[in-house]
Amino acid sequence: MRIDILTVVPELLESPLNHSIIQRAKDNGIAEIHIHNIRDYSEDKHKKVDDYAFSGGAGMVMRLEPIVKAIEFLTAQRAYDEIIFTTPDGDLYDQKTANTLSTKENIMILCGHYKGIDQRIRDHFITKEISIGDFVLTGGELAAAIIADSVIRLIPGAMGDETSALTDSFQDNLLSPPLYTRPAEFRGWKVPDILISGDHKKIEKWQEKQAYERTRRLRPDLLKEIE
Amino acid sequence: MRIDILTVVPELLESPLNHSIIQRAKDNGIAEIHIHNIRDYSEDKHKKVDDYAFSGGAGMVMRLEPIVKAIEFLTAQRAYDEIIFTTPDGDLYDQKTANTLSTKENIMILCGHYKGIDQRIRDHFITKEISIGDFVLTGGELAAAIIADSVIRLIPGAMGDETSALTDSFQDNLLSPPLYTRPAEFRGWKVPDILISGDHKKIEKWQEKQAYERTRRLRPDLLKEIE
Repeated sequence: MRIDILTVVPELLESPLNHSIIQRAKDNGIAEIHIHNIRDYSEDKHKKVDDYAFSGGAGMVMRLEPIVKAIEFLTAQRAYDEIIFTTPDGDLYDQKTANTLSTKENIMILCGHYKGIDQRIRDHFITKEISIGDFVLTGGELAAAIIADSVIRLIPGAMGDETSALTDSFQDNLLSPPLYTRPAEFRGWKVPDILISGDHKKIEKWQEKQAYERTRRLRPDLLKEIE
Repeated sequence: MRIDILTVVPELLESPLNHSIIQRAKDNGIAEIHIHNIRDYSEDKHKKVDDYAFSGGAGMVMRLEPIVKAIEFLTAQRAYDEIIFTTPDGDLYDQKTANTLSTKENIMILCGHYKGIDQRIRDHFITKEISIGDFVLTGGELAAAIIADSVIRLIPGAMGDETSALTDSFQDNLLSPPLYTRPAEFRGWKVPDILISGDHKKIEKWQEKQAYERTRRLRPDLLKEIE
């Protein structure tokens, strides 16, 4: 899988996609991530990438010309399954979307910054608008990092142990049961007796029950989808 | 405001919090962000921070001892308004929570990693569990970056122009109207005539109408809260 990220602040993305599972996936040839500075595509002599909104008001708007150049430079080289724009008014991102995207070959992610981008980019180039939640960020860079991270870890071989991703929260619409590791007692706080009983069948049952109870208490909406 | 972030992968957070609005807020003394490597608090000779789950199964669990040491090292120095744990089964993060957190003085964010953390940390130290959405990430680091970014930009003085944050999506439960900047025409794609009419009253009305229509179409749930 190849992910191209277009941004006006490439520095923001230097570290989040160069460690842990993502780095291993890149090292193993499972995923490629290419970060492009939109500024490099500006033909303006000051490499300007933003301008005032026609409607007036505070905040700058990302200009369409350098973005069109960047997108067309990439689409001339390969077909993209999706050209995604990260924006607070996009479709809410969830694990299902991550699963779907993880099966694609080439995706492009355009990060919004400043007040937003010229609407004509959205109308003519973007195939999918994604919001990662009802909150406003300085830019779409962290949203792009989240999409890349959540998608790449799902590609077979990306994680050390494939069963680990399958037992994650949301994959079966259940939250994880509580987790415990050594020591069995710390400051008088003990792990549940069952976990040190050695009875694996009982432990498994306990975990299932805990996962259900926790989901019912914290996220009953997830259970509705499977009941 | 001071934010302390506890993580086993501090490298992940090197770049996202050192640019743009966040960097300016730090330069102006509006916000401090301190990133702590939980590994530095491990007394294990191999600086081990994870161990097998008592329940068995794939994936490692973050050990409680180094985390307790890190938290208590910090709480001995100052009072924290919140000790947050980022986890997929926490309360869904939104702009309201960002607004509330932006009024606090000291917050600590513990990033989950691996399969999760020992439940006893959650039971005895965490005051607030936050999920940024229904998707699974390699770790809580990107979630912590999102909380820090969305909160710090709301602190008065953090943004160049304060009105800019107030007109963002969600602050008034309306999505932004479409934005346009120069050129007025590109490949035959024109900006709406009204925007180049020079009639500011009409433009303002158009924007309001667009914001309403867009919200009604894409996010009718937001309108219910104000109607």
